[in-house]
Formats: sequence, C-alpha cells, structure tokens
Amino acid sequence: MTDTTTASSLPATLRQTPTPALVVHLPTFDRNMATMAESWPGPSLRPHVKAFKSTAMARRLADAGHTSFCAATPREIEGLVAAGLGDDVLLANETLDAARLGRISDHAQITVAVDSDVTLDAAIHGGVRSVLIDVEVGLPRCGCDVDDAARLADLARAAGLDVRGVMGYEGHLMMVMDRADRARRVEAAMEILLTAHASVGGTIVSGGGTGTFDTNRWCTELQAGSYLLMDNQYDTLDLPFEKSLSLMGTVISVSAKGWIVVDAGLKALGMDHGNPTWDHGDVFFCSDEHTTLLPREPGEWSVGDRVHLWPGHVDPTVARHEQFWVVDGLDADDVVLDRWPIDLRHW
Amino acid sequence: MTDTTTASSLPATLRQTPTPALVVHLPTFDRNMATMAESWPGPSLRPHVKAFKSTAMARRLADAGHTSFCAATPREIEGLVAAGLGDDVLLANETLDAARLGRISDHAQITVAVDSDVTLDAAIHGGVRSVLIDVEVGLPRCGCDVDDAARLADLARAAGLDVRGVMGYEGHLMMVMDRADRARRVEAAMEILLTAHASVGGTIVSGGGTGTFDTNRWCTELQAGSYLLMDNQYDTLDLPFEKSLSLMGTVISVSAKGWIVVDAGLKALGMDHGNPTWDHGDVFFCSDEHTTLLPREPGEWSVGDRVHLWPGHVDPTVARHEQFWVVDGLDADDVVLDRWPIDLRHW
Repeated sequence: MTDTTTASSLPATLRQTPTPALVVHLPTFDRNMATMAESWPGPSLRPHVKAFKSTAMARRLADAGHTSFCAATPREIEGLVAAGLGDDVLLANETLDAARLGRISDHAQITVAVDSDVTLDAAIHGGVRSVLIDVEVGLPRCGCDVDDAARLADLARAAGLDVRGVMGYEGHLMMVMDRADRARRVEAAMEILLTAHASVGGTIVSGGGTGTFDTNRWCTELQAGSYLLMDNQYDTLDLPFEKSLSLMGTVISVSAKGWIVVDAGLKALGMDHGNPTWDHGDVFFCSDEHTTLLPREPGEWSVGDRVHLWPGHVDPTVARHEQFWVVDGLDADDVVLDRWPIDLRHW
Repeated sequence: MTDTTTASSLPATLRQTPTPALVVHLPTFDRNMATMAESWPGPSLRPHVKAFKSTAMARRLADAGHTSFCAATPREIEGLVAAGLGDDVLLANETLDAARLGRISDHAQITVAVDSDVTLDAAIHGGVRSVLIDVEVGLPRCGCDVDDAARLADLARAAGLDVRGVMGYEGHLMMVMDRADRARRVEAAMEILLTAHASVGGTIVSGGGTGTFDTNRWCTELQAGSYLLMDNQYDTLDLPFEKSLSLMGTVISVSAKGWIVVDAGLKALGMDHGNPTWDHGDVFFCSDEHTTLLPREPGEWSVGDRVHLWPGHVDPTVARHEQFWVVDGLDADDVVLDRWPIDLRHW
C-alpha cells in the first residue's frame, strides 16, 4: 500500500468504489511505462509529475529505474522530496517562490529553471544551488531568448550556482499530426536549444514530451508524463501508448426519452479539450456534477450501473481528484488492487 | 477566522499571497448577497453551495438569514452538517449513497431529491427521512416524468418518509439571453412543476437559479449560488450581480516578443466556458500551470507583478482550489482580510 490506506479499507470492487472516481488500468499503465523505457531508459527519462501528481506513481517509475523527475510547481517538488524521491528533481518552470525549494535542498538535489534576472535572483537568494537555463524554442511561454542564455549562465555561475545545462520545451509541436512535419519542426526547435547549450555548457539538454518522444533525438533527457495515462487528445497521434485512465461514474437517472445521467461532470474533468468520450454512445453534455449520455442501446442501462468515460486532457483531469483506484479490469466486479493518492496537487 | 488559520498567519497583502489564488472582493460579494435578498429574503432563498463549496461562505449567508441550503453531493451535505449548518439541507440531486446522509440525520434536517424507484429505495434503506420528488421540466438531466411524480410520492409516504414537495431545475433556460423569451419559457417549465406539485402535495416547490432569479415567480424557494461570485458567462446576462471572484497569478516571465506569462492555468480554472479574460489585454492561451497574456502595453509589465483573471465558469473553477482570499481591493498592496477554506470539495 502506498499510504495509510490498508488493503482491508479498499473498496472490494469497482462497484463498491465511490464515484466519480479515476481508475487506472494497471496492465496498460505498465505497458506504457515499458514502451517508453525502450526509447528512454533509466535516468534518460525525466518523468513529468505534473501529468499524474502522485508520489505512489512516481515510486513505481523509480522502481523501474526512472529516478529523476521534473515538476511544474514548488509543491510537486516538496512532495517528491518528502516522499524520498528527491535524488534529482527539476522544477521545469520559473518561480519567484524559490526559497521553498532552498529550504529543502539539504535533503535532495533540486534544480530550477530560470529565464530572467529576476527568476535567477529568486533562485540565488532562495538558496537554490543548481539551475538550468530555460530557452524559448518556439512555444510562446517561458524561456529566455537564445542570445541571452550565456549571460544568464555567467551570472548564475558568478553567484556560485551549478549551471547544469539548458532546457527548452517544444510544447507547440506536441500535437503536429504529420510525423514528418513534426520531426522537421522538432529538429528546428532543438537547433535553437543546442545553440544555447553550446554557449551555456553543462551536461544537460532537457526537453521534449509525450508527443515528441520519438522525434526528439537531440535532448539528453526527455520530459514526458502524459504517456503513462494518456487521454483522447494524445490518442489522436500515432503514438504506441494506450489510454490507461478512465473516469468512472454511476448512473443515477435513466430517462424514458433516451438519455441516462451519470454522477461525473465538470468538477471531475479537465474540459479544455472538450467533452470526454464514451464507448457505448454519445456524450450529450456535461454539467457541474453530471454528464448526460445518449446510449446506442438505451434499454440496456439501469440506475446503479457503472460507466467509464475517457477524458480529453489528462493533466487537468487528474488535478481534480484525491486518488487513483488501480485495477486490472474495468468491469464493475473487478477487484480494486490499490489506491494511489494524488498527493502533489495545488500549489 | 473561519478555521485554524489565525490572523497572524494570513498573508499581509495580495503581494504576499501564494499564487495561483482565488480572490473574493468582499464589498461586491456582500452587494450581490443583499441584492438577491431583496427578491428572495431569508429561507425563501436556498443558496446552492455547489457554486462556492465553502462553509465559511455558507455561514455568512446564514448570518444574513439564509439558513437553508442545497447541495449537489453527499460530501457537501456532510460538510454543512458538520459545520452546524444543517437546519434544513437539501441534496438537490439523485444519489445511491444515501446511507451517508441517513447516518447524520439525527443531527440535521436532511432532504434528498428522488426521481426513480431505485433512488427512492436508496433513500428509504439509507435512513433518509425526507424527500422531494425531482421532476424533469425540460433540462435533459435528472427528474422523473411529471406523470410519475404522484406514484413516487405515494411510495415514499408508504415507507414512512416525509414528502416535502417537488423540485425541478430549469437549467436549460439560465442562459436564454432575451428576457421576455426567458420569462415565457420559465413559466412553461414551472407549469410542469406545478402540475407535479398538485399531485404530490407538500409545501415546497424548489427550483430556479441565478439566471432565472427574477423570471421564476412560481417556486416557493430559489436554488441559486452563482450570483455571489459570478463569472464571465453569467455576466453576459442582464443581471444585477457583479463579478466578485478573480484568479490572481504572478508574472513569472516577460518576453521581448510582447507576451507575458502568469503562473495560473488550466489546473486553476474551469475551462468549459473557455478562456478567462483579462482587463489589460488578451488571453493568448492557457497551459496546465501557465496563461500567456498579450498586454496592450507590454512595456508596463515586469516579472513579479500580480495579475487578476476573470474565470469563465465559477463552479468548476472554485472546485480546483483550497481557499478563497478575502479582500476589499485588488491591488497587490491591498490587505488580505480573511481566508475562507473551500472545504466542501470532492465527493
């Protein structure tokens, strides 16, 4: 078990599990983990915990040899370190709250991304000891201009920090549908990052993600997390990973007019990529605590039935829940094997 | 103070508040509360806690005379009862998990909506003592057929339950933009509910919401919650309520190319009604933990600045956060007056 929950306090089966509930199909999860490890074994993969926010899941990755992690928030780093998973953790994001990480630096190797004088000053004065220079490679988000990378590295080294290298996230290319086009554009983005690396030094070139895991051949380490659970968005790409995460609801109402209603809605889902999908019919619409479904065979559904929905976007869906329920089958009578707390949420 | 937080442990000002953070502008909040109370005073309003999920906020409503509440989940009911706010609480939703409510029925007056034999059986066997018959009035969601209401009421009374009346939610009419059209259609929906009431009996006709607060004149009590905090969606209607809830982020990166990045993204927002808005420029796009903004005056923004975004949909936004920070001004140097825990989340 992964926290204070004991086996006897687990719901026996999915039918006994309170809904809405996030369900992880363990055989699929493990297959995704193994498939990625063929391309990016051991510490060459730096799993991104923002996609799953669970130290139990991070522990499973560490047990498989992936002992370095990256994160999007200080709280994720704090949680990893508190769980004994701080061998090599990277805040792959800018923060002014670096003192939170400096305070726990005796217990872990913590590296922070910086892209400006202000975020570098925050790292220095916050007691952070290692940084990566974050370089903008085409995504309109964080990252310094490639021509400013060496200057920031010099400032960091002058202040006594270890500059371990560079990072640059080609997030704008994750969903380029055509593989050849994606590969070309990833190469162009990584040329920018390698130019920065040449001027910065260090051993690390960190970047990439699930969508570019097999087209990005220039990073020394890949930042990927979504591949483990997947979602409808990533599933539209030609990736060898399969969806292992579903949202389970209970049918609470059946209308003679042909729709059924489950107790899983907007508050259990990330909706930025639209409605979830359902294998047995159409999703009509989602409300705060409901989803109305249009079954292909309305007569087959009864109040009390369990229903699995496939979320559009994994990261913001996970962040709404307190735990994953781990199974090896999605039938209502399948046994619940474990509970993995989603303990790295919030900020 | 509303929980174990003491005044001295509050951040002094918004500049010291960790971000992303939900901020409630108290003067606007109180004005919204007073405006609604003019139309629906005291217990004629049954505030819907699903919109704000905070017993501290519910306490403020109770202090203003609104001592009955409605909720969408068993956990919301449990939390209200535990906080001493269980004088008259309604689960305005179907549940098979009624035993959770039966267990706390000695300490509160708990009423549960039922719309089928199965959910009624769950209430009976779960030890629930009072029900409303939930009637479908046009929204394709929960609610029995109007012609089935009397039968369910008879079954409930035969089992010894108190049938307090009916409820029916005209949620499909909340966003009808034309007032006259909205009023006509609300009247037609409420005719269905009054027909059901005539056959069911009891003293309660419960329905309505923020969008129909002044067009629904047939309910004995209004179920409204969004009016307190409001959002961009409700703000498009001709309502006398103003937005009192903003999402505050910190600028963590400024690009010479004209965009700035704040540390508040998809995981801090309900996105089913699209991007948030910003008073000082355009929202370019939201990522998991970032929003990229295009300021009208890019040169005016620096790393460390605080930014307020206006969420599209209040309910699923609130459900992502641990607390509201209460202020009477939105400048970074404005004092934080209180912390209201969002303690009714999850299921």
